[in-house]
This record gives sequence, C-alpha cells and structure tokens, in this order.
Amino acid sequence: MKELKVIKIGGNVIDNPEALDSFLDKFAALEGNKILVHGGGKVASEMLKGLGIEPRMHNGRRITDAETLKVVTMVYAGLINKNIVAALQKKGCNAAGLSGADCNCITADMRPKEPIDFGFVGDIAEVNAGAFGMFIENGIVPVVCAINHDGNGTLLNTNADSVASAISVAMAEEYKTSFVFCFEKQGVLYDKDDDSSVIPVIDKAMFESLKAEGRVADGMLPKLENAFAAIEKGVSEVVIKHAGNLDKPIETKIK
Amino acid sequence: MKELKVIKIGGNVIDNPEALDSFLDKFAALEGNKILVHGGGKVASEMLKGLGIEPRMHNGRRITDAETLKVVTMVYAGLINKNIVAALQKKGCNAAGLSGADCNCITADMRPKEPIDFGFVGDIAEVNAGAFGMFIENGIVPVVCAINHDGNGTLLNTNADSVASAISVAMAEEYKTSFVFCFEKQGVLYDKDDDSSVIPVIDKAMFESLKAEGRVADGMLPKLENAFAAIEKGVSEVVIKHAGNLDKPIETKIK
Repeated sequence: MKELKVIKIGGNVIDNPEALDSFLDKFAALEGNKILVHGGGKVASEMLKGLGIEPRMHNGRRITDAETLKVVTMVYAGLINKNIVAALQKKGCNAAGLSGADCNCITADMRPKEPIDFGFVGDIAEVNAGAFGMFIENGIVPVVCAINHDGNGTLLNTNADSVASAISVAMAEEYKTSFVFCFEKQGVLYDKDDDSSVIPVIDKAMFESLKAEGRVADGMLPKLENAFAAIEKGVSEVVIKHAGNLDKPIETKIK
Repeated sequence: MKELKVIKIGGNVIDNPEALDSFLDKFAALEGNKILVHGGGKVASEMLKGLGIEPRMHNGRRITDAETLKVVTMVYAGLINKNIVAALQKKGCNAAGLSGADCNCITADMRPKEPIDFGFVGDIAEVNAGAFGMFIENGIVPVVCAINHDGNGTLLNTNADSVASAISVAMAEEYKTSFVFCFEKQGVLYDKDDDSSVIPVIDKAMFESLKAEGRVADGMLPKLENAFAAIEKGVSEVVIKHAGNLDKPIETKIK
C-alpha cells in the first residue's frame, strides 16, 4: 500500500514568519506523498479589527457572520494559502492550494443554529479522496485551508484540526496514512511541566492509565480522543509533535 | 485536435452579483473543455479603502505595494475566486480555483522599476500548459485569478487580460483553442454608437481598413492588436462579446 503523510500546522506556526519558513523547508524536504493542512492564526482577527469588525468567539470558536466569512475566506484561502504555496514552489515542492470548493474536495454542513448560532461555520460532511488522489498521483502536494463549501454555493468556515483528521480518514482507504499533528509542545508529556518527558508511543491501554493518573487532561484529552478515533477509522498512526521537529524523531506516536 | 475555450470576464461582471450569477449559469452549461479567467473589479479598491490604504493607479494600472499585494491576493485569489468556484460547484460544474503559484501553473517576472515602479506587479513569464491539461483531462474546470508568482516565493499582481491571452496561446499547442474575451459591449461595432452594428467576423485585411476608416480606435485598438497577436501565436480564434451573451451568437470573431 502506498504511504501518505497528512500534516497539520496551526496558528502558532502561521503567525511566526521564521518558524513558518523553517517548517516549510522541512516539509518540502520530506520524501513521499504528503498533504499540508493549515489553520488561520491571528491575521484574520487583525484584518477584522482593521476593517472595524469586532471578532466574536464562543468557547474558542469563531462566530462567523457574513462579513466575517468574507474576511476568513480572504485570509485563509487567499493570503495565507497562496503565500504558503508560493514559498513551497520556491523550495522545489510543487504545491496546489485548495479550499473544499476546489475540485469539490471537501463538503461541509452548516452547524445547527441551536444552542449557539455560529453563523457560516460548518462541520465536515464528505472528503473527496479521489480529488486529493489526483494531485498526489501527479506529484502535486495539496495545501488545504479550512474554508469548505456546502455544495449549494455557500462557503463555510470549518475547524482545521477536523479538516486534517477527516482527510486522513478518507485517504486511509487507498494509502497507509500517517496523520502528523503539529502543535506548540514537543509531544504528549509524561510530566506536563517537563518538555523532556515526551512519551514516544501511546496505545489505547496506556491512554486509559494516563487518563486515570490525570497525566492527560484539558486540551490534550480531546486531541488524544480524536487521535484514537482516527485510528479506529483506519488511519495507521497519529503523530503529535512540534512543527520545529518535523525532521526529528521527537514526537508521540499514537497507535 | 481536442477543443478548448478560454473565457475571460472582467470587473463589470464581478461587481454585479446578478450578472455574475447569470454568466456562471451559462458558463456551467457550456459543453466541452473550458477555462475561466477572472479580473478583480471594485472589491479590492473598497477593501483597501476600508483598511485605510489609498488605492494608487497609473494609466489605469494598479501600483501594488506590499500592503496592496496582501489585499489583492486576499480579494482575487480568496474572496472572488473561491466564491466563483463554490457557485460553479452548485451549478454542477466541477471547478478548481488557481493562482499562478498553484501547480506552478503561471510564473511572472516583476516589472522593471523604471520608468514607473509598479511594485509587486508582474508580466507573464511562462504558462505551464501541462498543469492546466491535468485539470482538463480529469474533467475539472480551472478558474484562474490574476495573482501569479515569480518562482522565488513572491506573489505578483498581473493583468487578467494578459493571463487569459497567455493561457490561450500556451494551450493552443495541444488544443484547438478559442479565446472568448467578454467585455462591456456586444462586440466590435461598425458604428461605435450603435449596439446593433456588431461586425460578426474580422480578419487582418478588414482590421487594416477599419483602422484606416477610424472605426476602431481608443480601447478597442489594443484589444484587437492583442487578438491578432494571439492568432499569430496559434490560437484558432478570438471572440469578443458581452458576458451576458455567452449563450448567444452575438459576437465578433477575429480570425
């Protein structure tokens, strides 16, 4: 079975030009089939403020009215996506920037308006594995932003973690897929205050005991639950690591 | 030889939501291989003003400093491009939005800084016909904005007419290519004040006599010169018409 890496980077990389450039160097050098999924970072909020639109959040998720949708579409699918693609081209990596509307590669459903109306926010409905496959088989690296469409002409803002996870699951039917989730820590830490305590491999049994000991909690708990959900749906492994370590074996593998 | 239509729409269509929707209906219904190239319209200037950046023009061409480049990248490659793609998907047309950086499909050279420094403005260097061919052969319709890259990590704002013309010329090696140039008139008019005086076909000899009679002048002169230049480079025909007439044989064919 052919192999594929789906790599997700978040706002902490996007917001730091040197960190982003260094990550893209390492990403470009990575051998084999790969897909990059990127989040948004602070640029959209800054742009909204510049235009006099107050960013509104609920539990860390952006409430996206029509004007906000315009801005996140511009920033995520335009500014950030095209600059990443141009930088990868410079580094010899033939990339193509995609929203879910392009090649109909990801559809989303608008989130129900109760209990909270998030506006133009969607949850992933379907990933078109064949569309991503076309790029990969032609040696082109998809660079995916979290703007998707409902198939009925409306763009929807979605969660970039969910996009990366859903792509990994969809591609796992045709490829031995590794989902590399980059975040601001070195991996899952045995002692959350000690960066050198990265746990190299976690399986379901170990996860249960780490949970019982209270060693995974807060933000790490849903990340690991999502990781195991992806594995149950056919993804070969989920790797959690710092974007700066893309070329180093400092990471937690979830199997 | 397989056939291909390259269709260019400008700001007059982009700026009018009903005209755009009606055009996209007709475009989606068009049989055969096709590529859409779109201009920018007024949205970028409005966005610049909203952000307190004064749009600067020289002879009708935008001077693009670093902040302006960000805004045109957002508006052309993000907002306009993705909304057109989502609308086409709704209409059953499987489209993919592209900047020149995506799949390295168009490179541009920054314009010399003398006599006028236009900033991040480029002239087309090379069109990657194979990249467009990949989409077409997979039944996907490229939707192209006029943001290109220099291959060295820098995005450049280019002229959408030139993008459409360069794509037509590059594709003409593999496809019998018709370049359909939509603008605000019904076609080339024999009497510029009479919309019903559309000249159906113009060849080089007729062009010379129309010029001598002063019947083509001002903005129409460079359009026709570019049309004949495209034909000399292998494009089968250039069609000049109103976007609203895409489904009607009201047009001027240049052969």
